[in-house]
Amino acid sequence: METTNRPLILISNDDGFQAKGIRCLVDMVRPLGDVIVCAPEGPRSGFSCAFSATTPLTITLREQQAGIEIWSCNGTPVDCVKLALSEIVPRRPDIVLGGINHGDNGSVNSHYSGTMGVVLEGCMKYIPSVAYSLCDHRDDADFEPLRPYVTDYTKRVLNDGLPQGVCLNINFPLTKKGEGYQGVRVCRMAPGTWKQEVTQCHHPRGYDYYWMVGHYQNDAPEAEDTDNWALSHGYVAITPTHIDVTAYEAIPKLKSWEAPTPNP
Amino acid sequence: METTNRPLILISNDDGFQAKGIRCLVDMVRPLGDVIVCAPEGPRSGFSCAFSATTPLTITLREQQAGIEIWSCNGTPVDCVKLALSEIVPRRPDIVLGGINHGDNGSVNSHYSGTMGVVLEGCMKYIPSVAYSLCDHRDDADFEPLRPYVTDYTKRVLNDGLPQGVCLNINFPLTKKGEGYQGVRVCRMAPGTWKQEVTQCHHPRGYDYYWMVGHYQNDAPEAEDTDNWALSHGYVAITPTHIDVTAYEAIPKLKSWEAPTPNP
Repeated sequence: METTNRPLILISNDDGFQAKGIRCLVDMVRPLGDVIVCAPEGPRSGFSCAFSATTPLTITLREQQAGIEIWSCNGTPVDCVKLALSEIVPRRPDIVLGGINHGDNGSVNSHYSGTMGVVLEGCMKYIPSVAYSLCDHRDDADFEPLRPYVTDYTKRVLNDGLPQGVCLNINFPLTKKGEGYQGVRVCRMAPGTWKQEVTQCHHPRGYDYYWMVGHYQNDAPEAEDTDNWALSHGYVAITPTHIDVTAYEAIPKLKSWEAPTPNP
Repeated sequence: METTNRPLILISNDDGFQAKGIRCLVDMVRPLGDVIVCAPEGPRSGFSCAFSATTPLTITLREQQAGIEIWSCNGTPVDCVKLALSEIVPRRPDIVLGGINHGDNGSVNSHYSGTMGVVLEGCMKYIPSVAYSLCDHRDDADFEPLRPYVTDYTKRVLNDGLPQGVCLNINFPLTKKGEGYQGVRVCRMAPGTWKQEVTQCHHPRGYDYYWMVGHYQNDAPEAEDTDNWALSHGYVAITPTHIDVTAYEAIPKLKSWEAPTPNP
């Protein structure tokens, strides 16, 4: 890509470079800068911050037009970001965007999400990073209602940046056609649990195998300050998320462990 | 496994069920309770909290003796925990242990680590969970110096539990043979960056491919309260780590975003 003075926007996802969500995201933000996509060759949902420690990786240029390049990679979402930063971008990106994900990344899904892997990786490289997700898993989900929000939030972060070590996890509820959102809420991550996650099947050859399919349970359904509450009440949920996962509140209690162990 | 009144200890890792580190961990904690291992069939370093959304999973009983069962799984570290909890354990485990990992899981490595994936999964299921890692990648690393610490910390957590939503990331420095540790420090996660992560190679068939190999840079080398500092000065580093990744400190500033977007 030629060097210009426009902002450089790096985009990846976990649904693959051909997914509708990432195509829509490119279309929404291309007025704001030059766009480089480096996204997985196929679906990589649930890949979290995984990277490929033992697999050789390849990248392929799929499309090129003025101000846009689209690459695919055989690796994980995090591999895509690392490879793009090392091998593809002509200059340091001004922002890293993940998504638009087909499906909810609120609550503990944030830990499993490859979309969040993308933006955590951007954030670990000290680049302002934002994940966009829509609570609709369908391949043909309608992303158009997100457009003014995605444009506005991307513009704001390009202009103002984000606090160091903090990225944004922005989830959009699924609303009925023609209905707008109730508003926007800045949230904390809801505590939640996946239940009955394993479905046993029997292979024709005689052995058992398992699929990971479960249902999610919100463990604080009354808490109005959570992302789950916002989404289930029709609000856009913005959850600021940080790289530093230290449980500072637990440190004082654990300090007693600094004493010698009984039989060291 | 028969039901007993002893504590039940569930163990997994990301180096695979045959790794020396997990074998040593089983040996260290077997006096404390019944042990079930469910660990990947082979190395899964860098798998983070990834789970297998689209791959059929299988589990295989590898060894069985009084109070110990060892299973392998074709999936990720998180898959191992989910499958063990759903299909293998005779009762709810009293503790989930990850490791002992061959290699450092301090600082941002916590995000990439499959060992941390194990204990984050245990913690998300509200089970007290502890990850043990040794700063030595070698297959034949000497885990024996860790024994009194691993026994003691596992016992403490079995007795006292951990605050809800908090797990422990415990890293041990590599010391010269015969030299003990300087002590134990309860730490925060150091900020750090992986540099030059991508190595380009040329395939005999004419295309380029890439390996993920880099070197780690501590971005706060003077900060004495970090895990990196503790490890590089010969201390055992205990980093309490939480599931809730909300950046609460960023919420007030972001509240202005709750106003309508300019052109919604």
